[in-house]
Amino acid sequence: MPRFFMSGSNIISNGVAVFRGSDLNHIKVLRIKLGERLIICDGEGRDYECRLSRLGDNIAEAELIEERLSAGEPTINTTVLVSLPKGDRADFIAQKCTEAGAHEIVYFFSEHSVSRPDAKSLAKKVERWSRIAGEAAKQSGRGIIPKVRSASSLAEALDIGVKADLKLFMYETGDRIPLSAAIGSAADAKSAAIITGPEGGFEKYEADIARVSGFTICSMGPRIFRCETAPLAALTALMYATGNMD
Amino acid sequence: MPRFFMSGSNIISNGVAVFRGSDLNHIKVLRIKLGERLIICDGEGRDYECRLSRLGDNIAEAELIEERLSAGEPTINTTVLVSLPKGDRADFIAQKCTEAGAHEIVYFFSEHSVSRPDAKSLAKKVERWSRIAGEAAKQSGRGIIPKVRSASSLAEALDIGVKADLKLFMYETGDRIPLSAAIGSAADAKSAAIITGPEGGFEKYEADIARVSGFTICSMGPRIFRCETAPLAALTALMYATGNMD
Repeated sequence: MPRFFMSGSNIISNGVAVFRGSDLNHIKVLRIKLGERLIICDGEGRDYECRLSRLGDNIAEAELIEERLSAGEPTINTTVLVSLPKGDRADFIAQKCTEAGAHEIVYFFSEHSVSRPDAKSLAKKVERWSRIAGEAAKQSGRGIIPKVRSASSLAEALDIGVKADLKLFMYETGDRIPLSAAIGSAADAKSAAIITGPEGGFEKYEADIARVSGFTICSMGPRIFRCETAPLAALTALMYATGNMD
Repeated sequence: MPRFFMSGSNIISNGVAVFRGSDLNHIKVLRIKLGERLIICDGEGRDYECRLSRLGDNIAEAELIEERLSAGEPTINTTVLVSLPKGDRADFIAQKCTEAGAHEIVYFFSEHSVSRPDAKSLAKKVERWSRIAGEAAKQSGRGIIPKVRSASSLAEALDIGVKADLKLFMYETGDRIPLSAAIGSAADAKSAAIITGPEGGFEKYEADIARVSGFTICSMGPRIFRCETAPLAALTALMYATGNMD
């Protein structure tokens, strides 16, 4: 069923949802006809199954059939923190991590980050990634749109991630714990943070800071993932291990 | 360390490997200097760590330091069979499934496959995907280059996949078994086949044929993966579950 994220005054009131602007446009692009069903999600984990009851030039309406909790939300709230990669790899990460169940996506700068946009350009990029996450959330049936933001340094990223129950730092070399051991040791975790590196990897001192901050330094096995694949692989493994791919 | 796949007469004989043509070119592009180390892999799971001992215009040589089994090969041989998607999604699948540990990648046509290249164009595409898999195998430290081929129908794909110990068919709706239950029931599997669908998904009759052929019809949870993400997500989950991401 087509899926819309709506909030504020447009959402269901008195059993009727109102579509204007880009939401109305979306109805038209998808060629939804009178009487057809769609899902409106409030972006906070609640779904409203509706039937299109009015379709005008400047407005559309849908009647509420059933209200329920969104099925698409994992039981674990995961923040994915990625060192900003080059080019469209960051787009890829926003899309794929949304599909896989990320709650929040944070791009940060680390020692070997090549891409260093200025503040204005970064703000535009965050907007773009948020839009990509929004589209992916609709397509994949999420109950929320993952929040996307940036952090200026690894320290700031650690500061965000350190609040999670399960704190994972993916590192390609040195002293590490197998990912399954790290995840297995926190079976009842309600929240997780996954940190992955840039094209050139992390410096040893960066892994050391993460370890001191309470992160588990993890290995994802003998194969080396590209920087845009690593967050998705780690997130998928976590979702699988916590019963969120069943 | 830079990684080369070589076979036939160029590989180590009498403790020396010889580089010509594209392999020599690769040495020059990577600017490997005399005395520097590199790994030559025979593509069958064996690595040769070498030192560059000669660098000429038309030939280079490397001396053998150590021979060993490639560390990058999973303990389970997985064939990923994907219904051919549109555009560059097939490229993406070849690259990412190689990183994640696929042994073989098969593209096939199913009821809702949109892309239907003719034989000549398909042969070119298979060549292209093989090249992508080769590049990804080098980058990610694989001990083999996954074989890429095409199959003309779901029946042919099932025929390939049915030989595997663990036979998984990803389906978005209807009667399904959670992925973890399907994987968990075959803990000692030495080989696996994963089948995923095209943009429009599989028809019910296709899932029925797969079930009759001995495949387990699996759910990957409440979130719907895009057709190019599904094979990677399923393969990653399998690698994680079988201890191949540790």
